[in-house]
Amino acid sequence: MYTSKNRNFRSLHALSKECTIIESVHNILEWDQETYMPAAAIELRSQQLEVMAKYLHKVKTQPKFKRLLSQLINIETGELISEELTLNEAACVQRWYRDYRIAASLPKAHVASAAKVCSKALHAWSEAKRLQSFESFAPHLQKIVKLAREKASYLTYKDHPYDALLDLYEPGLTTKILDPLFTKLQHTLTDLLRKIIARPQLEYPFLKLHFPSSEQIAVCNKILDLFPFPSKTTRLDISSHPFCNALNPKDVRMTTRIVPDRPLSSMFSVLHEAGHGLYETQLDTSWYGTPLCQSLSLGIHESQSRLWETFIGRSYPFWKYFFPILKQYFPNQLASIDIETFYQAINHVEPSLIRTEADEVTYCLHVIIRYEIEKDLIAGKLQAKDIPYIWKEKMRGYLGIAPESDDVGCLQDIHWAMGGIGYFPTYALGNLYAAQLFETYSLGEPCWDKDIEKGDFTKLAFWLKENLHIKGRLYTPQQTMKLLCDKDLSENAYIKYLHKKYKNLYQV
Amino acid sequence: MYTSKNRNFRSLHALSKECTIIESVHNILEWDQETYMPAAAIELRSQQLEVMAKYLHKVKTQPKFKRLLSQLINIETGELISEELTLNEAACVQRWYRDYRIAASLPKAHVASAAKVCSKALHAWSEAKRLQSFESFAPHLQKIVKLAREKASYLTYKDHPYDALLDLYEPGLTTKILDPLFTKLQHTLTDLLRKIIARPQLEYPFLKLHFPSSEQIAVCNKILDLFPFPSKTTRLDISSHPFCNALNPKDVRMTTRIVPDRPLSSMFSVLHEAGHGLYETQLDTSWYGTPLCQSLSLGIHESQSRLWETFIGRSYPFWKYFFPILKQYFPNQLASIDIETFYQAINHVEPSLIRTEADEVTYCLHVIIRYEIEKDLIAGKLQAKDIPYIWKEKMRGYLGIAPESDDVGCLQDIHWAMGGIGYFPTYALGNLYAAQLFETYSLGEPCWDKDIEKGDFTKLAFWLKENLHIKGRLYTPQQTMKLLCDKDLSENAYIKYLHKKYKNLYQV
Repeated sequence: MYTSKNRNFRSLHALSKECTIIESVHNILEWDQETYMPAAAIELRSQQLEVMAKYLHKVKTQPKFKRLLSQLINIETGELISEELTLNEAACVQRWYRDYRIAASLPKAHVASAAKVCSKALHAWSEAKRLQSFESFAPHLQKIVKLAREKASYLTYKDHPYDALLDLYEPGLTTKILDPLFTKLQHTLTDLLRKIIARPQLEYPFLKLHFPSSEQIAVCNKILDLFPFPSKTTRLDISSHPFCNALNPKDVRMTTRIVPDRPLSSMFSVLHEAGHGLYETQLDTSWYGTPLCQSLSLGIHESQSRLWETFIGRSYPFWKYFFPILKQYFPNQLASIDIETFYQAINHVEPSLIRTEADEVTYCLHVIIRYEIEKDLIAGKLQAKDIPYIWKEKMRGYLGIAPESDDVGCLQDIHWAMGGIGYFPTYALGNLYAAQLFETYSLGEPCWDKDIEKGDFTKLAFWLKENLHIKGRLYTPQQTMKLLCDKDLSENAYIKYLHKKYKNLYQV
Repeated sequence: MYTSKNRNFRSLHALSKECTIIESVHNILEWDQETYMPAAAIELRSQQLEVMAKYLHKVKTQPKFKRLLSQLINIETGELISEELTLNEAACVQRWYRDYRIAASLPKAHVASAAKVCSKALHAWSEAKRLQSFESFAPHLQKIVKLAREKASYLTYKDHPYDALLDLYEPGLTTKILDPLFTKLQHTLTDLLRKIIARPQLEYPFLKLHFPSSEQIAVCNKILDLFPFPSKTTRLDISSHPFCNALNPKDVRMTTRIVPDRPLSSMFSVLHEAGHGLYETQLDTSWYGTPLCQSLSLGIHESQSRLWETFIGRSYPFWKYFFPILKQYFPNQLASIDIETFYQAINHVEPSLIRTEADEVTYCLHVIIRYEIEKDLIAGKLQAKDIPYIWKEKMRGYLGIAPESDDVGCLQDIHWAMGGIGYFPTYALGNLYAAQLFETYSLGEPCWDKDIEKGDFTKLAFWLKENLHIKGRLYTPQQTMKLLCDKDLSENAYIKYLHKKYKNLYQV
């Protein structure tokens, strides 16, 4: 464990570590709720979560934190004061300052009222989804939008109130960056999609056969074994929605979903969550309790999951290695299937209604639709009640299809009900970052495919560790991409990757 | 949830509930550590536990608690002040007062130093056990004894310093009660044991066959299904030491141990832990967060586990129902075994070294040995370093055997290293209470065996709920036994039960 020579830094570290530990306890309650908790315990579980959240807030906002911080950084200007700090320590202080500034700028009353509104909104959302109609949820969302606008004004911003919200999830990200990027991305993807669906569409009936759960779990564990996790730091469980919950770098819990007649779901979920998990296990534990042992941003986190799920997981080299193994588990189901057919099947492109099930070409279009809607909500140009109409319009425009009911449309995701406006763009960013990282990696390792063909994940994992994971929040996401890929965030690498891949697959 | 008309009571209830919830979060960390936690997470887990313990202590000892309490009860005399309280509320206040008085009487420095000493003692104990020699542990235990004597003087007592420690685990219990009781019990048990081992000793080689784990788990779940737990409130997992961890009445987690060539271990562990679990699930949740939704004492808790494990679990009627089911799971292993042989096998009496594996006749003798040693340590009549000698002496005297090394002798249990002096007698009490409760129940329900023969646990479970579980800490253990069995705590019922049972089994 790192020990600073600076007394104030040491005290801040201790406080920050306490917060980190409290958060990790909160996390185990959430993990348990989705995996092993007896169902009748749900009401008391929410009380446990509430007590822990209250405790965390108390520790985080105690005056001692501000007092210590102000010994090291000017609370007004953000300028470092102490000259005794090492570069790493200075970075920690700057990240602590950022987190403090965000927490301090939000009045208690605002936070409490947001919690109340969201709690009601969550119930309303799940009820509205059950009834397949957005109408009863609209007034709740309108309140959430109002609160989000308030939040933006507390947090302050330069150009667009939405920028303040974006920055919460992806430090430094603005509409000024996203607008041209998403516009170009949307045009290119919609264009590529049109070309692809103009081609003959194949069907893959073998993917609807029965793949027994126990074999699916065995396959998932086989996939996990390929990841060079540090010994005895991870586990895999089953839940209805796949997730990765890292209590700390030595306790990373991934889950997958098993659907007997949808065998791809469990495997790609495991590849996705393992990408998140690898990031967490490869953080630098000697800085535990500081920002240098924290992940960089939601977008960067998502880039890790998407890199393994799609760039590796949906690649030909990976299946050259893994398809023969998969066949051993499912000899009957895959008897007549060759690797080429399988590779085409897992990269089948088709406009669909649900984001989480979308292919590589259409995925970002779902995200862009939500981004555009969120931005207009925050700008006051759009009212919540009008969302179902605009949702269908945009779906038709970008994807060529539209939902018949809202449960598979604008109600499909929980984020709005949780107050998470500004979160969504990070899902698209994950793909763009991943493409840039993977482009850089494969330029330096032109024979990367030979490793993957042997099921060897170690070289890529090590590269990610040394260049990204182990640095924690030392740099901002922007600095990191610049340093690592010598490029700012852009859609180019992703588009290049898609064009190359789908040219082969669909002759477009 | 109960809501009092008294404002101070309501505030106390809220504080007490917060403590209960914090404890439950501490519990899930412990449960997870023994079941699913990745091994590498152990160090950070102890930090999580420490943060939660610190938090609990902080909430428990805040001045507000004393201030509120002193509105309802005289902090000096323990006399109730408020006349507005209902009987149930008055009982809550008295229990809160007891808990407060104990916590307040121990100086912070003492608590901190005890924690430090025990932490080191735990390491020393496990190392000494590995080396099979008590010597290196002795100085640690001597320190723990010194602290226990200090603790006794802080807590105050009338006759013997050990009384103060006993009272912590079994409110109201004293050496004055235990001395004559344990003396008589020891004489009777040693005498019965001598008669039994003078009889021809049978062997049961079928109990050493291979019983596959998956079938053992299925059998354990079959046993659990007999208990009328409220729907979706419990779960069973596997751990190296069986335990029951109740987060709250709606979240009760039991574990069992699976040893393929010791099939009885998993089944009797499940019966034992289910007895604990049933108690917890049948507490009165409308009083959650108050002493009326807490178990009465360690001895009473143990009586519930022993009642189901031995009085029911080792009874002929139970196996009349369950042996045919067991045979379905293990047709080969039990092919030539009839129920009479099986019944004899599970009630085989033989002096052995390990308490947790002892039969009904010898079990309490192990406890009495430890009681006598603890009492003399606290009285200053015995030094820790002399324990191995005296242990062997007493083992020879009461059980006729003695350990060759300390790991299977005075080092076998963790309690001393944890500072739990005074805890042990409750294990014997569990048997005595269970016998008294079961005698009372079977007097009122002379055909209890007909229910058990049908695998019907509901009547006994309901009787325990109505007469014991649902009352929480409304009465003291003594009052409870008096009210329920019309008798003070005594060894009579247990001895009567053993004589009757083993007369049949061994013709003694």
